[in-house]
Amino acid sequence: MSDVGIAPIPQPGLDELIRRALAEDAPWGDVTSETFLPASARASAVLVAREPGVLSGVGVFARTMELVDAATVATAELTDGASFAAGAVLARVEGPARAVLRAERVALNLVQRMSGIATLTASYVEAVAGTSARVVDTRKTTPGLRALERYAVRCGGGGNHRHSLSDAVLAKDNHLAVLQAAGVDLHTAIVEARRRLGHTVHLEVEVDREDQIEPVVSAGVDTIMLDNFGPERLRAGVAAVAGRALVEASGGVTLETVRAIAETGVDLVSVGALTHSARGLDLGLDLEVSAGGGGRE
Amino acid sequence: MSDVGIAPIPQPGLDELIRRALAEDAPWGDVTSETFLPASARASAVLVAREPGVLSGVGVFARTMELVDAATVATAELTDGASFAAGAVLARVEGPARAVLRAERVALNLVQRMSGIATLTASYVEAVAGTSARVVDTRKTTPGLRALERYAVRCGGGGNHRHSLSDAVLAKDNHLAVLQAAGVDLHTAIVEARRRLGHTVHLEVEVDREDQIEPVVSAGVDTIMLDNFGPERLRAGVAAVAGRALVEASGGVTLETVRAIAETGVDLVSVGALTHSARGLDLGLDLEVSAGGGGRE
Amino acid sequence: MSDVGIAPIPQPGLDELIRRALAEDAPWGDVTSETFLPASARASAVLVAREPGVLSGVGVFARTMELVDAATVATAELTDGASFAAGAVLARVEGPARAVLRAERVALNLVQRMSGIATLTASYVEAVAGTSARVVDTRKTTPGLRALERYAVRCGGGGNHRHSLSDAVLAKDNHLAVLQAAGVDLHTAIVEARRRLGHTVHLEVEVDREDQIEPVVSAGVDTIMLDNFGPERLRAGVAAVAGRALVEASGGVTLETVRAIAETGVDLVSVGALTHSARGLDLGLDLEVSAGGGGRE
Amino acid sequence: MSDVGIAPIPQPGLDELIRRALAEDAPWGDVTSETFLPASARASAVLVAREPGVLSGVGVFARTMELVDAATVATAELTDGASFAAGAVLARVEGPARAVLRAERVALNLVQRMSGIATLTASYVEAVAGTSARVVDTRKTTPGLRALERYAVRCGGGGNHRHSLSDAVLAKDNHLAVLQAAGVDLHTAIVEARRRLGHTVHLEVEVDREDQIEPVVSAGVDTIMLDNFGPERLRAGVAAVAGRALVEASGGVTLETVRAIAETGVDLVSVGALTHSARGLDLGLDLEVSAGGGGRE
Amino acid sequence: MSDVGIAPIPQPGLDELIRRALAEDAPWGDVTSETFLPASARASAVLVAREPGVLSGVGVFARTMELVDAATVATAELTDGASFAAGAVLARVEGPARAVLRAERVALNLVQRMSGIATLTASYVEAVAGTSARVVDTRKTTPGLRALERYAVRCGGGGNHRHSLSDAVLAKDNHLAVLQAAGVDLHTAIVEARRRLGHTVHLEVEVDREDQIEPVVSAGVDTIMLDNFGPERLRAGVAAVAGRALVEASGGVTLETVRAIAETGVDLVSVGALTHSARGLDLGLDLEVSAGGGGRE
Amino acid sequence: MSDVGIAPIPQPGLDELIRRALAEDAPWGDVTSETFLPASARASAVLVAREPGVLSGVGVFARTMELVDAATVATAELTDGASFAAGAVLARVEGPARAVLRAERVALNLVQRMSGIATLTASYVEAVAGTSARVVDTRKTTPGLRALERYAVRCGGGGNHRHSLSDAVLAKDNHLAVLQAAGVDLHTAIVEARRRLGHTVHLEVEVDREDQIEPVVSAGVDTIMLDNFGPERLRAGVAAVAGRALVEASGGVTLETVRAIAETGVDLVSVGALTHSARGLDLGLDLEVSAGGGGRE
Repeated sequence: MSDVGIAPIPQPGLDELIRRALAEDAPWGDVTSETFLPASARASAVLVAREPGVLSGVGVFARTMELVDAATVATAELTDGASFAAGAVLARVEGPARAVLRAERVALNLVQRMSGIATLTASYVEAVAGTSARVVDTRKTTPGLRALERYAVRCGGGGNHRHSLSDAVLAKDNHLAVLQAAGVDLHTAIVEARRRLGHTVHLEVEVDREDQIEPVVSAGVDTIMLDNFGPERLRAGVAAVAGRALVEASGGVTLETVRAIAETGVDLVSVGALTHSARGLDLGLDLEVSAGGGGRE
Repeated sequence: MSDVGIAPIPQPGLDELIRRALAEDAPWGDVTSETFLPASARASAVLVAREPGVLSGVGVFARTMELVDAATVATAELTDGASFAAGAVLARVEGPARAVLRAERVALNLVQRMSGIATLTASYVEAVAGTSARVVDTRKTTPGLRALERYAVRCGGGGNHRHSLSDAVLAKDNHLAVLQAAGVDLHTAIVEARRRLGHTVHLEVEVDREDQIEPVVSAGVDTIMLDNFGPERLRAGVAAVAGRALVEASGGVTLETVRAIAETGVDLVSVGALTHSARGLDLGLDLEVSAGGGGRE
Repeated sequence: MSDVGIAPIPQPGLDELIRRALAEDAPWGDVTSETFLPASARASAVLVAREPGVLSGVGVFARTMELVDAATVATAELTDGASFAAGAVLARVEGPARAVLRAERVALNLVQRMSGIATLTASYVEAVAGTSARVVDTRKTTPGLRALERYAVRCGGGGNHRHSLSDAVLAKDNHLAVLQAAGVDLHTAIVEARRRLGHTVHLEVEVDREDQIEPVVSAGVDTIMLDNFGPERLRAGVAAVAGRALVEASGGVTLETVRAIAETGVDLVSVGALTHSARGLDLGLDLEVSAGGGGRE
Repeated sequence: MSDVGIAPIPQPGLDELIRRALAEDAPWGDVTSETFLPASARASAVLVAREPGVLSGVGVFARTMELVDAATVATAELTDGASFAAGAVLARVEGPARAVLRAERVALNLVQRMSGIATLTASYVEAVAGTSARVVDTRKTTPGLRALERYAVRCGGGGNHRHSLSDAVLAKDNHLAVLQAAGVDLHTAIVEARRRLGHTVHLEVEVDREDQIEPVVSAGVDTIMLDNFGPERLRAGVAAVAGRALVEASGGVTLETVRAIAETGVDLVSVGALTHSARGLDLGLDLEVSAGGGGRE
Repeated sequence: MSDVGIAPIPQPGLDELIRRALAEDAPWGDVTSETFLPASARASAVLVAREPGVLSGVGVFARTMELVDAATVATAELTDGASFAAGAVLARVEGPARAVLRAERVALNLVQRMSGIATLTASYVEAVAGTSARVVDTRKTTPGLRALERYAVRCGGGGNHRHSLSDAVLAKDNHLAVLQAAGVDLHTAIVEARRRLGHTVHLEVEVDREDQIEPVVSAGVDTIMLDNFGPERLRAGVAAVAGRALVEASGGVTLETVRAIAETGVDLVSVGALTHSARGLDLGLDLEVSAGGGGRE
Repeated sequence: MSDVGIAPIPQPGLDELIRRALAEDAPWGDVTSETFLPASARASAVLVAREPGVLSGVGVFARTMELVDAATVATAELTDGASFAAGAVLARVEGPARAVLRAERVALNLVQRMSGIATLTASYVEAVAGTSARVVDTRKTTPGLRALERYAVRCGGGGNHRHSLSDAVLAKDNHLAVLQAAGVDLHTAIVEARRRLGHTVHLEVEVDREDQIEPVVSAGVDTIMLDNFGPERLRAGVAAVAGRALVEASGGVTLETVRAIAETGVDLVSVGALTHSARGLDLGLDLEVSAGGGGRE
């Protein structure tokens, strides 16, 4: 499924991110495992869902296990993007007990956060099903985890907005205020910007008043963001843009309001909550000790 | 207040963390500001609360602003740990417009997350007011942000559990399962561990059955964790421990259940949700453009 | 001028890049300066053009000087993007002699390379003056220096193509060959890609045959690249595209051929040579020793 | 051949350099490959010379391929230092199509630059064949790539000058100017420097006037650099030095002038152009898709 | 033995530490091996003790060998913590001659320093045998090597004090002086600190006068350090503490004085010399060249 | 004095080294200072010698103080290379009490180790006074601290051998053994190496038998090392070399034997003990609390 539907997690830096997280969690060793567990003990364990959700980060979970000790083998039972019920087994791990328990918390922290985002995203996506609107993320991500969190949004069926300040223009209210204070006309500024920007750079401008729509759209933007317009004004905005640019709705989007917003005909609904307010999904690692049993039954 | 009540944010690595976040958010420049804003434009702005809460990270917010451009000056209006109402001004910023807007999102992402944790923590702390129990965090933190998130917990009035796997022992169910499978007696294992551990290392063991309490406590632990005991069994557990070790309650702790748990006489209540499920607090940056007005209204 | 015409050099990582270059050039100190020069000696120097050209990187030159010793002051005499004649003074430096001479080579290596690129770019831009075509760069940059080299292209009046594999799609001959081998229809693949890609991602496809144009353009690309078409076929290609996408010419572009290519009506001419074959411009640092003269007259 | 003639590329830091280049070229993934190519598609490809030259960096090319995906296998067909004709196959690659195409540009950028330097060096070396002079490089290298570029010079048959400011002394015109301004006698300064320098540190001084030769050589230098002397004065200079030190010619060295300079009897001719003005050699990656053909013809 | 007695070397960062040491020792290659040794030559060698001692770091020695070239195989003959006589073979290495000789010095530098510490520690531990006192280290370690040096202390039979300023409190004379200057009562300060500190944080206070003991101990510390008390006063101090806290002796501890100190009944004797004044143990690498002999006989 | 006699500590990487040491010593803050000391408390302190010695690293000490908090001011009372008696004040510090105490241990660890090396070196240098021999260091340095330790040797009046494997050739017994096993003649190998090596690379070969001297010296080495020859054989060796190369004595060098070795006429005596077996000099930080006194007496 990830073959066709979900682009894989970007590799560059992933190992470094995991190693940094592991070092943060054990800067000079895992004193519990080293003290209590025989070096020769092995453990097998399952990653289990304690509540239903959408999976994201099972590969990150597995990679974390492997980076602690190459002798650990982790196998996914489901692929990212899959929905699961409470109790579902998501992955299996087998390796030296000290390594598995030393990696446990970091591996869980990552997959729980990513699956939390995917699950929340999926609920928004489901809420707008059948409309022409796409639910997209924002730059309100956790510092250091943006690539993973954007991937999690894709796992939940959402779309990605720009990745960073470098790859697309989004002139927001604060930019417009500076322009205005400097006495620069917005329409002119956009025309000039278009001329100077690289041809691959997407150009989007945020407006919060109807009278800004025409000057912005006629200057040639790729997307216009209508901020805090509400369903009624959004519908009028979509009509005013008249297909000359993509229309993005933002502001005041909740699971309760998103469908009404999507039904106005906007192309995009951006939802900061997907990343800044998702809670970690409740996943756990249940040990199945080889020699003699035990575990968490 | 931070002078007496809240230990400051640990410095080592803070600048590096912020720089990494800034690079993530603008790997090759801020194309919007560079295209739309005159290099000479200046901006002043205020960090405003859009909902009530407890502040944490105002220094991180300010440092982020300064790291983008040393010509930016950011001043806190409140100190970390302070409660505020919606509409409160938390900090002021003044500097080159390009720098302020380029730093905005990263600075907000950090202070919103930290204040979200402080605010959630404060609600748990308030819920147990008057009992002898202390609300403490866990290792369920965002990879890369542990020091900041533990600081945010302190800002909210909570306490910190161990920082990492390196600085204290916490033998959990999975460790006990490995021990059992290896045929090692728990009491003996603890006695032996105590003998070998450095004298500064705190030793804690988690149990989920009453009959584990005596062998664990009599072996000489500093803290015993009673996992998922529920109020009634907790009360019995506290009696069984009889002051020979600190008692920590964990599992099933919510804002609804925490007071009943705290009233059982336990010393510590650990709450993973403080960090893994806090949502970002709604804070915003409102521009007050110097030359000629503007802003957000 | 950089205020309106040239976006500034992206800051994140610039200091780190310079520090790495300085460490490469003096991993354990500058044995010549430390042995021959009194610690108290000061030096003033000028960055002089030994041939005409277009300036790029004067800020990087200055920053390199300052990073070796904060007591060094470097001032630009011209701004990036300015043309200059042989003999022109481009910048002035004043500071401890040991620091100035220790920084000299690294500072020169950077500004010489960047100005070489700007100068070469300017000659291409001049060659197409009056046509509707824009000269743009490629990803054929020096590993580690991409942001600086793309900036140098802008200083020379050129435009930037995508920055990296992450921020825009460019399906090239090798991608198409894989698709074909996998039995995937190109038109269908593009339609599907558009559906899945983030809305800010620019979509470009390279073709090397006329019969590929219609399936590609009708699938909805932002830009079509006509590879190695030559002026005549380019003109026909532009007609076939008929304004439905930007047209980029690539392959076989030299200072001799570029005008004929530009006159075919294409929107973009991409030139790998701008970065992979620019030679360093001949700039030098002439010392003006304070106490008693000397220097290079 | 590299066994006897060319010392291998220094390993420390090579992987890090490549990883940094890969991250620069795809900070958050390769959106083209991830969108267009099936994850299961495989590709085989050949590194082909589009013009004649001397090979350098085939191991770096291969290592880049492998670092993107350990499942990729790259094999050299020629060894570094070998000459080849246009059309020659230099290396073969086989691996996941996404990995091969994601690595392509970075791998090419490196081997093209290195082979460009080796090829230019070889032309200088050939030009002085039969004389006693050795063509050597300078510190005018690309920041971050010095070890690779010095290696490329060796592949072209050239010699290496000092690596950095740390490992040998080279007092140049600017140092002498500072000394003079400080009222320090050059001969005395050299004698004193020799006394203080570690015994393994090579000591070289640059002069641009005949009357400087005797004081410098009699003070005991290892090498004297005659800067911009021209063939006639060089011949006289060599006679004046009379074997008491190595003689290095620098300044004004081009492919046209180098032989006349070499024939004056100097030991070394240093050529900044070897590294600062070599253009990338035209090498390409031609795909040979397994299932069903394709490729570039 | 390391299974039960000695916790393993903390992994996070170990490879990075070794790589940094290797880069320091060969920033751009090993010119001797590359020039003198055939690339195909192989070497086998033994790590030999030239004096008796206690082993520590044999795994670090082996890992260093492997990191230079994965084709090198290093095998320990003894485990860390083992005592050996002069002439003992501690490990064996087999691999490419260039790699083995390039790694030799760094590998030796590490294992010699670590074994030097283990050997010195063992002599202190032996000196206190039969008493109740444990010999522990301090923070007087080599910058960058703390985790390795603390591990070496464990190999020698010693115990570890706190790892860093972050994981335990140790209020020393200088802290007390600041408190006193600020007019803060020590007893009160400790009581307040205990209330605020995380429950896992060990709390220790240093005193240098008898009259400080009661206020400190009655405030509830985990350990009290009696600095420079000498045997007689230590005995009195132990009696005054009366089991309410651990007692640590520090200051003036040498191999001559340590037993008398230990016999006073203190729980801990901290010895800075274990790490700041251990000399490198004399270990060497003896080559056993495969084809034809040679070596060091 | 450092102006003429001692080259300064190499800067590149020094701050990074110190920051790494500070992070090692306080990965998440200094819990003692943060808990016990008022944020507003200030402290002044002196770096005091508790035993006589030679100073090295006072700048590193000061820089460490400043890097913790830019508000701290540290001033040297003596310069590196100066001798001092017990009780001497070496530097003064003034700043926030929390910063001074947080930096104390790292700053001391560095200056104590460096001054220990300088002091030991000075004793060797004094022992050979009046002979023609120079005492030099080896590569037996602490991993990560080589530049600092070589600098410390210079402060003690010693000389530096090569810095690393990259900047000079030293073919040792193990290299010769590999050569011999490969059937390569040593004389021929040296002649060939000389031809291929860069002209700035110092070439040294170690021998342990008299009959190796002539083949080595006649091949054209810069230095010949006579390993473990003892005074008598050294004298003969010096005669045999007859000024054709520098002669270095190594092996079995102690404070007792060094003078006899130096009197044989060798040019260099290399002493591994300078760095691998120097103990930290006893230096301390005595607080002089501003408000009201305190301190250590």
